[in-house]
Amino acid sequence: MLSKAQISLIKSLQHKKFRTQHRLFVVEGIKSVAEFIHSAYKVQQIFSTAEAHTKLDKIPQNIKCEIVSDTAFSKLSSLKNPQGTLALVELPAPTGHLDSANLKGRHSIVLDDVQDPGNLGTIIRTAEWFGIDTIICSTNTVDVFNPKVVQATMGSLARVSVHYMDIEAFIQTIDIPVFAALLDGQSIYATDFGKEGLIIMGNEGNGIRKSLLKKVDHKVTIPRIGQAESLNVAVATTLFCSELARQKFLV
Amino acid sequence: MLSKAQISLIKSLQHKKFRTQHRLFVVEGIKSVAEFIHSAYKVQQIFSTAEAHTKLDKIPQNIKCEIVSDTAFSKLSSLKNPQGTLALVELPAPTGHLDSANLKGRHSIVLDDVQDPGNLGTIIRTAEWFGIDTIICSTNTVDVFNPKVVQATMGSLARVSVHYMDIEAFIQTIDIPVFAALLDGQSIYATDFGKEGLIIMGNEGNGIRKSLLKKVDHKVTIPRIGQAESLNVAVATTLFCSELARQKFLV
Repeated sequence: MLSKAQISLIKSLQHKKFRTQHRLFVVEGIKSVAEFIHSAYKVQQIFSTAEAHTKLDKIPQNIKCEIVSDTAFSKLSSLKNPQGTLALVELPAPTGHLDSANLKGRHSIVLDDVQDPGNLGTIIRTAEWFGIDTIICSTNTVDVFNPKVVQATMGSLARVSVHYMDIEAFIQTIDIPVFAALLDGQSIYATDFGKEGLIIMGNEGNGIRKSLLKKVDHKVTIPRIGQAESLNVAVATTLFCSELARQKFLV
Repeated sequence: MLSKAQISLIKSLQHKKFRTQHRLFVVEGIKSVAEFIHSAYKVQQIFSTAEAHTKLDKIPQNIKCEIVSDTAFSKLSSLKNPQGTLALVELPAPTGHLDSANLKGRHSIVLDDVQDPGNLGTIIRTAEWFGIDTIICSTNTVDVFNPKVVQATMGSLARVSVHYMDIEAFIQTIDIPVFAALLDGQSIYATDFGKEGLIIMGNEGNGIRKSLLKKVDHKVTIPRIGQAESLNVAVATTLFCSELARQKFLV
């Protein structure tokens, strides 16, 4: 049976303050929990309904599993349609310094203050689809362990590495090409992205902060045919990931 | 001053039943309201705070404007960060029969039971960016006048035409190529989309219903480099819209 303390702990992890305090975050859903079990993350405990528990195969013995009633589970879940399973996962140790040498020979995404959890989650899921494994976030980007972000990654967070840092200072240390997604620039389809680089994507309302543009080597735009004023940032990031993959692997 | 009846009417329009009953839907936000004022839709009334009202220029005289206090406005708004303006817009007359001849010479999107309002809104916004002006939805697709859909279109709904119908019956009447987004098929980048066609996108969890596949001429897939299991449907639709534009206008 679930104690009040357990319910209150799990609910508290919707807030960054308590995730940081307890060094834990929540992963929900059968597929997502399964992906985290078989990842580098450390799963501390799993809460499942009896039915959902049977769908999670090969749970390592060191992970505590607690079977709870459907009613109890609905108290824990933050989803509209709970899938009956939820894991408490340890926050990874802060990544600290990201060595710019690690970014050589590939493309990585830089996010400048992306605010919407759904956008960040979708960006992680889409980046992984197209083989991008590193995302660098400004310190004001929404927290990647926010439950809505975790949910929107559909398990991809288990395999994509996400770093938070002062991106303005960081790109000063970079010696690979820097591309920026802007409303003006060379067409994305005509841009040669080469074999390595950073792609900077801006905030939902304000785009990329001006002070970053000094370090940008290539201003790149997505050609517009119709009259829409802008594209959603996850949509725009998708188009960059796709174009990188098309140029590198697929043509 | 706002009457209780006005507040209750506006709140009720979050539900499809009352939108249908009153033949009205709600558009929120300065940019979106401005787009609807200058569109084929009939705006019946605008509620704004004094500050937001000054940002809406050239409101035709036949549109009633009511200035309300910030507190009153916050009671009407369904947004987390209300922008101080909201319009009641008349539901268009049901479009009825869509003549398949109207789909000649261009590409249109068909959605098979897309459920998430944010996905439908993003699809409309992105389609418009890439010059696609017709979207055909199965009858079980989320209602396009749902406030979350309207919001996510960022005004593009004012210019894209969205039809609901029995898509299974409809595609029987079509004599242009039918493409379907699937996990197996020819690479999207290697597919020649020609000068006209329908692109079918499936439901978030279940994809495209099997009975539609008989009428599909081209199975198309988005090549995967990483391990993500699937792409979000708005993300996948984005890639089709972009590839159509690239092939038709941009290369």
